Amino acid sequence: MERRLDQDLDRVRQALLKMGGMVEGMVAKATQALLDRNNQLCTEVIEGDNQVDHLEIEIDEACHLILGTKQPTAVDLRFLVAVMKINGDLERIGDSAVNIAQSVEQLNEHPPLKPYIDLPHMSQLVQDMVRKSLDAFVRRDAQLATEVCKGDDAVDGLYKQIFRELLTYMIEDPKTVTRALHLLLVSRNMERIADHATNIAEDVIYYVEGRDIRHSHGSDLLKAG
Amino acid sequence: MERRLDQDLDRVRQALLKMGGMVEGMVAKATQALLDRNNQLCTEVIEGDNQVDHLEIEIDEACHLILGTKQPTAVDLRFLVAVMKINGDLERIGDSAVNIAQSVEQLNEHPPLKPYIDLPHMSQLVQDMVRKSLDAFVRRDAQLATEVCKGDDAVDGLYKQIFRELLTYMIEDPKTVTRALHLLLVSRNMERIADHATNIAEDVIYYVEGRDIRHSHGSDLLKAG
Repeated sequence: MERRLDQDLDRVRQALLKMGGMVEGMVAKATQALLDRNNQLCTEVIEGDNQVDHLEIEIDEACHLILGTKQPTAVDLRFLVAVMKINGDLERIGDSAVNIAQSVEQLNEHPPLKPYIDLPHMSQLVQDMVRKSLDAFVRRDAQLATEVCKGDDAVDGLYKQIFRELLTYMIEDPKTVTRALHLLLVSRNMERIADHATNIAEDVIYYVEGRDIRHSHGSDLLKAG
Repeated sequence: MERRLDQDLDRVRQALLKMGGMVEGMVAKATQALLDRNNQLCTEVIEGDNQVDHLEIEIDEACHLILGTKQPTAVDLRFLVAVMKINGDLERIGDSAVNIAQSVEQLNEHPPLKPYIDLPHMSQLVQDMVRKSLDAFVRRDAQLATEVCKGDDAVDGLYKQIFRELLTYMIEDPKTVTRALHLLLVSRNMERIADHATNIAEDVIYYVEGRDIRHSHGSDLLKAG
């Protein structure tokens, strides 16, 4: 007896949300590791990535199976396409959290360079973007997804500001170079997480409204000729 | 009259290869811009990205349309899923080429830091990976795709070596910090391009063999319960 498509889709949705919760937790933990100079938290983030990688494969395979056996159409098809893309972005958010944790381990071998003000702020913005993009997915809320896309500019601004500040440290005192570089990598990874949250939000808009808000509009690939 | 599925799939394949050629050209040009200190080439890379972004959307929309109207199965379905993923990776390779070009513009405002030896080598390795991953896609050659995946380690090794060398420059002479940082970003972007080529190669293996070689094996998501 074949199970209904709705049940399969719901199972995929639940798995994706579980994965979202896992990577959100990794980002929060990596930030806490930075602020508390806590190597144990770094280890937890790095080791937790295996589970995320495993879940990514499971979700992908489930989507392929549904596509191949249930031939979903319209909104169900858009849902599956969106899930496969969001899945990839969540996995990369997990990778970025691991990169941050690895930099924090390096930072913890030296005395602190400075009190962190912009980095926790940036991390908070980025975590909000990830959470909102997944909320938008659950609620099918294109409006909320649009807000997430707009948030990316603030994160880019903070990244540039942090970059300039760290550059000044490095130029003024060569002893700060290694630490400043790792802080730069931390902020760069946070900026990439914001990019992934933006990708997720764009996929939500495609799923909900059936339109693509990226770089441009319209496709003639299959019409031409 | 409905066109045959084969024709649609072939049109998507051609468009993807066109996009592959475009981003390969961008990576080669950005590297040439670095070696020749040529701002004109940087501008060409940066301006060329619009076309890539446009083509990405077209390919995505074509895939969605085929999925939604032709209900492809088995290898055709795997082909479309692979195309959608490869499409995303190619677009990000284009973004990395733009990032490199932007760093080169900054570098060209200062005298050269050093003769480049590892960076052109790294760029060559990375370009080979991109080309081979697309060749593997065209020829449906899982063996070649596997070779691409193995090439990633050499690139990672070069990245670490370049990182250490640039760190030494920065620590020894603060006047080198800005230039060394931009060279670091250049090599970081090359390393990311290699990651995308690896993703493409993994998608080719999934498409050809119907198995997923990423992080782990097996999915029980839809079986459980």
